[in-house]
Parts: sequence; structure tokens; C-alpha cells
Amino acid sequence: MNYNETLKGIYPPITTPFQNDELALDKLAENIQKYNQTELSGYVVFGSNGESVFLTSEEKLILISSVKEHADSNKKIIAGTGLESIKDTIFLTNNAAKIGADFALIITPSFYKAAMNHHAFISYYTAIADSISIPLIIYNVTKFTNVNIVSETISELAQHPNIIGIKDSTENITQISESINNTPDDFVVLVGTGSVLYPGLNAGANGGVLALANIAPNECLQIYNLFSEGRLEEAKEIQNRLLPVNKAITSKYRVAGLKAAMDMLGYFGGLPRKPLQELSLNDKKDLKTILEKANL
Amino acid sequence: MNYNETLKGIYPPITTPFQNDELALDKLAENIQKYNQTELSGYVVFGSNGESVFLTSEEKLILISSVKEHADSNKKIIAGTGLESIKDTIFLTNNAAKIGADFALIITPSFYKAAMNHHAFISYYTAIADSISIPLIIYNVTKFTNVNIVSETISELAQHPNIIGIKDSTENITQISESINNTPDDFVVLVGTGSVLYPGLNAGANGGVLALANIAPNECLQIYNLFSEGRLEEAKEIQNRLLPVNKAITSKYRVAGLKAAMDMLGYFGGLPRKPLQELSLNDKKDLKTILEKANL
Amino acid sequence: MNYNETLKGIYPPITTPFQNDELALDKLAENIQKYNQTELSGYVVFGSNGESVFLTSEEKLILISSVKEHADSNKKIIAGTGLESIKDTIFLTNNAAKIGADFALIITPSFYKAAMNHHAFISYYTAIADSISIPLIIYNVTKFTNVNIVSETISELAQHPNIIGIKDSTENITQISESINNTPDDFVVLVGTGSVLYPGLNAGANGGVLALANIAPNECLQIYNLFSEGRLEEAKEIQNRLLPVNKAITSKYRVAGLKAAMDMLGYFGGLPRKPLQELSLNDKKDLKTILEKANL
Amino acid sequence: MNYNETLKGIYPPITTPFQNDELALDKLAENIQKYNQTELSGYVVFGSNGESVFLTSEEKLILISSVKEHADSNKKIIAGTGLESIKDTIFLTNNAAKIGADFALIITPSFYKAAMNHHAFISYYTAIADSISIPLIIYNVTKFTNVNIVSETISELAQHPNIIGIKDSTENITQISESINNTPDDFVVLVGTGSVLYPGLNAGANGGVLALANIAPNECLQIYNLFSEGRLEEAKEIQNRLLPVNKAITSKYRVAGLKAAMDMLGYFGGLPRKPLQELSLNDKKDLKTILEKANL
Repeated sequence: MNYNETLKGIYPPITTPFQNDELALDKLAENIQKYNQTELSGYVVFGSNGESVFLTSEEKLILISSVKEHADSNKKIIAGTGLESIKDTIFLTNNAAKIGADFALIITPSFYKAAMNHHAFISYYTAIADSISIPLIIYNVTKFTNVNIVSETISELAQHPNIIGIKDSTENITQISESINNTPDDFVVLVGTGSVLYPGLNAGANGGVLALANIAPNECLQIYNLFSEGRLEEAKEIQNRLLPVNKAITSKYRVAGLKAAMDMLGYFGGLPRKPLQELSLNDKKDLKTILEKANL
Repeated sequence: MNYNETLKGIYPPITTPFQNDELALDKLAENIQKYNQTELSGYVVFGSNGESVFLTSEEKLILISSVKEHADSNKKIIAGTGLESIKDTIFLTNNAAKIGADFALIITPSFYKAAMNHHAFISYYTAIADSISIPLIIYNVTKFTNVNIVSETISELAQHPNIIGIKDSTENITQISESINNTPDDFVVLVGTGSVLYPGLNAGANGGVLALANIAPNECLQIYNLFSEGRLEEAKEIQNRLLPVNKAITSKYRVAGLKAAMDMLGYFGGLPRKPLQELSLNDKKDLKTILEKANL
Repeated sequence: MNYNETLKGIYPPITTPFQNDELALDKLAENIQKYNQTELSGYVVFGSNGESVFLTSEEKLILISSVKEHADSNKKIIAGTGLESIKDTIFLTNNAAKIGADFALIITPSFYKAAMNHHAFISYYTAIADSISIPLIIYNVTKFTNVNIVSETISELAQHPNIIGIKDSTENITQISESINNTPDDFVVLVGTGSVLYPGLNAGANGGVLALANIAPNECLQIYNLFSEGRLEEAKEIQNRLLPVNKAITSKYRVAGLKAAMDMLGYFGGLPRKPLQELSLNDKKDLKTILEKANL
Repeated sequence: MNYNETLKGIYPPITTPFQNDELALDKLAENIQKYNQTELSGYVVFGSNGESVFLTSEEKLILISSVKEHADSNKKIIAGTGLESIKDTIFLTNNAAKIGADFALIITPSFYKAAMNHHAFISYYTAIADSISIPLIIYNVTKFTNVNIVSETISELAQHPNIIGIKDSTENITQISESINNTPDDFVVLVGTGSVLYPGLNAGANGGVLALANIAPNECLQIYNLFSEGRLEEAKEIQNRLLPVNKAITSKYRVAGLKAAMDMLGYFGGLPRKPLQELSLNDKKDLKTILEKANL
């Protein structure tokens, strides 16, 4: 099966709404219903912005189920079910699959950083891919893991029939290009952050999983569509306009900032879960200015 | 209660024995019975060498229960039950307490590295300490987490009645000294690796949780006892003799090396769990030479 | 003056030829004469591959003078004359200008890393730009300096009439885009490594200073020219073919590898200066295979 | 010759006084005359706090000459004359020796970080030690260089008759211990920062080169002397009292802070040279409070 066609496009790694530090499923439903109106290809539940590390297994399954319930039937559901433990990952992934996850996004294990070499990654991903009932997408996000899965390893893993793609959140355009060059044509490469959407598409990426798509789905889609139509200068212009916004929600103010921006732009963001801290009033003002400058 | 007296001394962060990648509880029992013959103060289940990240919750509880069963009644059981999720941490810790854990060793959360500031740590540790039934020991291990909990934060957390100490695995003697200087007298400071045992004791630490104590418990105890008796030069001599061994099992060959060394020295080590890789034959030879040079 | 037009195109940061660890000016002349046959826009003397840190001031001036002597008159000479000391930098730059340097490439100071903030960079570059007789190009190369000059600072420095551009060797396409977006139109942005030539041109860069251009000047020029003609797919194809070569000479085998590759491809490379070490025979074989695979 | 005896004790890495950004030799003389009243073993000219990277070669020689002129005859002069270039280092060192430097402190080369392995360091230090007229002390200061010279390399270099010691500024007590254990008895090990003075002496170090000794020479000497007399608890008490001061002048406020503290405590500090920035008023207030709390 050629997943290039199935998986192409733009995905928001959706945030997890909390009220009083507990899941707020009604707010999740409202957000999803808004996103359903767009051409977004689907939803990533538990990308790095989903605060999945702060959720129990039960909460994770409830969320996946809830997203499935409210998502339009043509939207793909990608669930971030990777954990350090191979057993836990297989168990959680297969449960997620039963309640609606179409694809599993599996983050690189990273606790024993110095030991996470080629052989360890091959061992980890092969064991999981062999035992899960949905296709596996590798997730490389060095800023959170401090480990990197290199091109040679990706290239070998891409031979596995159940490992069908990678979400690369390194912002390293060379590495993204290598992932594209050194894997079969039907291996899916999604960039993992808005700052490299346009460069990534230029390099041949199939789309992106973008925190930015939580607050500016249509602008992200415009970049994607303009690029597809060969209207490069127009695509680049929007990309450049959004760069400061992307920086604000991913590196300057991060999850708390992304959620605050959602509140400012008509979605439900709310507060991050403990121990993450709310933005200060000053930071919110600064964030608002950044959004306004980008015409959001 | 003054935990300085209760908790002082030497603890091995015990390894988790596997056979065919599954728990080998009989091997665990054999190791514990050997350690019971020594003056070790107790056992740390799931320090960083326990491969806890590769275990399911069920496996963790089975292990704690098994350690409790075989440990001499005077040995303290410290369980590493910290997880990113506050809810999960409380749940696991309270279950561990029910089956025998005396103290909870709670690693700093670290996924959202850039957000793990003073306020986040205060929020995290306070929420947990408020809700668990056993005393909490902070666990700072930057080489695995890439975050550091600084002296000012430790100092504030030490005011909490249920936060009673820290295991500091940074090898940073300045920071260890600050933890001692800036906390109440009854706050327990344990060094987290053999390389800083002697310097840590000199700085006023109460003892250590040492991978080294898995393979050389008596030598570690000798350093501790000689120091306590004021026989500094003799303590230092053993410390220096063991430095290359400590380096081999913690940074050069890590968990796989520690387990291989256990096998060489009469304990059950076995293989690490997937995705960790076995040592090569050459590495094992080198390790053996290092052990021999240190007269182990 | 609009330097966009003057400075556009491809530059090799030429290596410094040594024989018996001393300058080999005749070999330099031979290399330059070969490069003169190409459409290269000029020569960067003392980019990071020029081993300038191992040269005395006298040797640096001799080299610049020698490059000037042999370079075709239409080739621009960019001299890397930046040093930590403002005084030394001004002195060396003005001497370099007298003997033929057209532009000064000034690396960020970096010894006191933690102090190299916005204010320090503004102070440093302003003091130098005010006092040198040729235009200044900022040089940002985090892999050697471990400091980064951010977009906000570049944007402010770009207002100075004698600061006319930047060579950005970070491989960070987002930052390269920011440098383009946040500076006046006539501010020159050159990418600093072959891996980001095609992405950089897509982002609007004016060209590149590429170690790769020392061994494959015509291929680099092809990428540039094809891109300029809008033949993006062809440009990308060559870029992708050269990625493994670029990695070999910049990160895997570095200066010693670049020089060995020059020897393999008809230029004079020779050995790096002490304390840099020659490649092993095995590494040379591997390098040769990489070059052959890329049809060089 | 046994340099252990000759070189033992406490040294300040003296700061370089500037007025209007130019050398202020009279201020230097005043500081030296004050330090002459103490039991300091000598002066390190151009440790990392000497801002040597901002000085021309001529200024460096003037400073060494001036320190020599004003220093008591029993004070050793250690000059930081290491540069990336072997030629430059030999030339500067031999000139420094002619005008009064007794020992050369040679920082690890670090520009080509990835290439600075065992062989490169052996090549570098051997070439220099062979050609300079005064004994060489290795200088390892990872926070500025981002390279580390490991125990195995130090051990081999210690065999060279003209390489007589190391100043280790890593704060890594394990590495300091290794340098002591793995070198001949007459190899000198000086700790490079006040935070590890007491732990370093405990490990067997011969003394220290301490920024702290610029502002609190007598307190540093007290730690050293009390330790030598076996009055460990008293030594440790002073050490602990000074820890926050050491942190303020080395990591929080660095060179500018050290100089401000000198001004507060009766020495001439003045401003750092461009591009380093003066402390803000608030930072000065904070620094003053830190000094007062430590009874300085």
C-alpha cells in the first residue's frame, strides 16, 4: 500500500484540554468539530504538544476514543503511543487501534541515551512493528529526547513492512532530506514543526504534523496547497509570515503558549496540566502581539 | 523524625534480572540473599540501573514485592516510583508502599526540559509528597534526564514534611555540598554514584546509592566505615582503586556492563532487557581486566 | 551599494596547503589556477576549513597576498580575519585589505560563551565595522564556537552601513530564513555549508560558501545555476547526490577529509597542520567510496 | 625537580585592569602590592579571568612584565600563553619567559572540537613542551573550550619532562582524582575554581588557581592552611561559606562580576574590556548582598 497518498497533508498534534487539571472532553469535541471544517488530513493525538507524558493509560485511551468519535470519517487518527517499554508500547498501541487509531506514532526511546545506538533502535522498532496491528510511524524529536535516530537507521527500518514513515521534528533539513533520499518512495516523511514546512516540502516531504496547525490550520494548508500548485513564492510568503508565531508556540512559550494562543484565536486551549505552568500576563501580551503581527 | 540516622549508609540500586527477556525472580532472590550477608543499609529498587523504564507497572510491583520478601527485615526498601505523570506516580508509589516500599525515590520529570524550572519542580514534588503514604526522596540524575534541579529548589522542597532527602547523581560535588548546606540538618543527602562517595562523605553526605555496591558491596562499605572512623587515607585509597571500575560500569559499559560484571563476580547479572544490547566479547574482556586490576 | 548582486554565487573556503607543516604557496597557486577556470564568484581565505587558527598573523597575510596574486581579477577575495580581540581584528583586517582582501568575514567571538549576548555582539561588531576599511560579513558557525548569534541581533547589526551580510553555517534553515526576512533587501545571506545550499536558495539566500566547492566547484555551480533558471528538480537531484559527500568532508572526516578528497580529485590537499591528524588508510578508503558513489 | 613543593598553594588568576578600555598598569601594581602582603604562592597572569583573548600580544607581554616588576620575588609567575597555533604559542611563551614568566599555562586547543582527540592533544602539547624554555602546565577548562582532556591523555603527557602539571577547572572531582592517581607523584594538580578547593585538597591536589583568591585571598589561604593542619571541619566551614560567592563571580556574573566584587572589597576591578558588558545596578546590588552574607 502506498501511504504517501493516504497520509499526505497537514495534521495538528492536538492539545489535550483540561479543566481543573482533569480531561475536558466537551472542549476537545468543540475543537475537533472546528478542525473538521478544514482540509486537515487528520489528527495526531499525543504528539509532543498533547502532554501525553502527564496522562494515565486510561486517560490516553479515553482521549483517542473521544477524538475518533468526533472526527470526520475521512480524517486519519495517528496516536502517539510510544513508551520506553516495548511491552507497554505494544499493549497501549493495540488498545488504541481497537478504539480507532489508524496509525501509531512511536517516539524514540531515550532514557539510556548513550545506549540508544543503531542496534538498540533496530531492536526496539522491530519488536514493536512486529506486534502491533496498525502501521508504525517513527517519531524523532531530539529537543525532548536528546537522542537522534540517524539516516542509516531509518533507512534500515524503512525495509520493515509495518514501518511506513517518520515524523521528523529536528528542524534539520539535511536530515529530513536524507530520510527522503534513503528510503523507498512509499515511505512517508512528515516534518514535525511549522518552521520547516516549506523547506520540507521543497525537499520532498509528504506533509507535516504542526503545532501551528492547532491555531492556524488554514494558513498551514495554504502553504501546502500553494506549494502543490507550484506557486512557490506565495507559499514562502505565508511561511515567512508565520515563522515568528511558530517560534512563540514551540520554543519561546511552548505548550502553555500554544494553549494560550488557542484561547486567543477561538479554540479551547486552557491551562496545561501540572507541573507545567501558566503563562504570565506579560508573556500573554507578548504572544498576542506576535499573533497580531502575523495577521492571525 | 531524623532520617539521617535511619537512612545513612550504602545502598545498591539493584539490577533487574531477566531470562529470555522476562523477570527472573529466583535470580533476584539469590542476589538479595547474598547482599543480606553484608552491612548494606537496604536496597534501591529501580534506580537508573534497574531498567525500570522497560518494565510494566505490574512487573514493577512484582519486583518490589519480591525484594521485600527476600530482604532482611533491617534493610530499608527504597522504590524508584517516579514518573512524568503526577497521577501515575502517586498511584504507583502508594501501591509500592502497600507491598513493602519504605521510601519513594522520585526522579525529576524531564520530558518538557525547557519548562522544568523552579515553579514546575515545586508544583510536581509538592503534589506528590502531599499524596503519598511514604516519605519522598528527590532523585536528580542529569545524565539521563538532561534537566537539573538546583540548590534553591531543593532548599524550598526540603521544608515539606514528607520530602526527606535527595539522591544526587550529578557527580557535581559543589551541588552536593550546596544540598547539604542549604537544607535542614535532618535532610538526607545520598550521593548517586561511586565516583563521588569519598568526596561526598567529606562534604557531609549521609551515604550513597551506588551501582558499584552491586558488585563490590564490601569495598563500598569499607570506604564508608573507614571514613566514619576518621581513617581518611585508607578510605581514599580504596576509593581510588575503585574509580576505574565505577567508570566502566556507569559510563563506559553502563547497565549491560554492570550486569556482565555481576556475572563475573558471583552474582546473577544476565542480559539487559531489549532494546539494550549485550556487551561484545572484546568489551567483556576489557571489563574483566578492569575488575582484576582493582582486585575484585 | 547593493552587495546582493556583487556577492552572489558560490565560494570555496579554500584550504591552506602545507608541506612539512609549512605553507606551500606553489600548491596554493595551482589550486587557485584551477578554480579560476570555473564560474566561482571568488575565494574565502580562512573560512573554518582554512586552519587559520593554526597560522601566525604573518602567515595569514602571506596567504591572502598569494591568493590575490593568483586569483582572476573578477574573483572576490573574502578574508576571515575575525579574532576574539577587537584590536587584533581591526589591525589584521586593515592589513588584509591593503594586500587585496575585498571583504572581511568576522566570526562571532566565543570564548566567554555565557557572556556573548545581544549587547556583547552589538558592541563587538559595531566597534569593528566602524574601524575597518572594507565591508564586514558576519560569520556564524555554532559547531566551532558553541555560541549562536540570533536573528534579532543580526537584524540590528544589518542597519550598520559597513555590515553587509552574513555567512550562516548553522545548517538551521529557519534561522537562515529569519536572516533573510528580518534584514534589508540588500543584506547578503550566504549559507555556510553544502548541505543547505538548495534549501537556502529556496529560502532566498544569495549563494554559499561551501567546503564542497573545494572539491566539486562545478557541481555546486550547477545547483546554483539550475535553481536560478527555475529548474528545481534538477537542482535538487544534484544536491541530494552530494549530501553524503558533504557530510564526509564536514562532519565525518572534517578538514583532514576535505584535504584527502582534494588529493583524490586532482587538487592539492595534503596534510592538515599539527595538531590535526591525517586520515587513516581505512578512512581514506571509505571516503573514496563515498566520492565514487556521488560520481566525483 | 619536584614541583609539588615549589608550586603548592593558592594563586589568583589576576584580572586585567582597564581604564577607558586600555591597560591600567598603575591599578595592576596596586592590586599586586596588596596581594604581596599575603601568603599567596604567586600569580597567574591570563587565566580565564584575565581577558587575555581580548589582548594583543604586545599587551600580554607588557602585563607579564608589569606583574613581574611588582610581584615579590618569592611569588611564582604563571603565564597563560596557550593559543590554538603551536607556532604562536611557542613564540609568545618564550617571550614571556624572557621577561619573567616562570611557568606556562597552556589551554587545550579547541577550535576543531571534534578533532581534539588523544592524538591531537599529544601532538599539540609535545610540540610545545619540546620548544619552550619554561615548564608547561596543562590547562583544562571545559566551560570555555567545550573540549575535555581525559585522564588517559594527561597520564601520557605527564611522562614528558617539561610537562609538570595541570590546572583542572572542570569542577569534576572524579577527573581531578584521576589526574592525581594516574600521574607520577611529582606531577602538580591544581584545582581551577574555588568550589572544588576543599574537595580537591581532600583528593590530594597541591593547591588551586582560584578567581576567588582575587577577592578573598586570605580566606582561600585559610582553607588551604587549615586543611594542611588536619583541621578539616574548620576548612570545610569556610569553604561552604564561600560557595555562593564563588558561584556569583564564576557562573552567575562572571568576569564583570569578579571585577565589580574587587571594587567592592578594596581592590581595583573596573570594567571588563569590550565586548564584555558591565553589570547592571540590580546585579551589583545582588552581588553585594552575596558578599555580605559571606562576611566579605
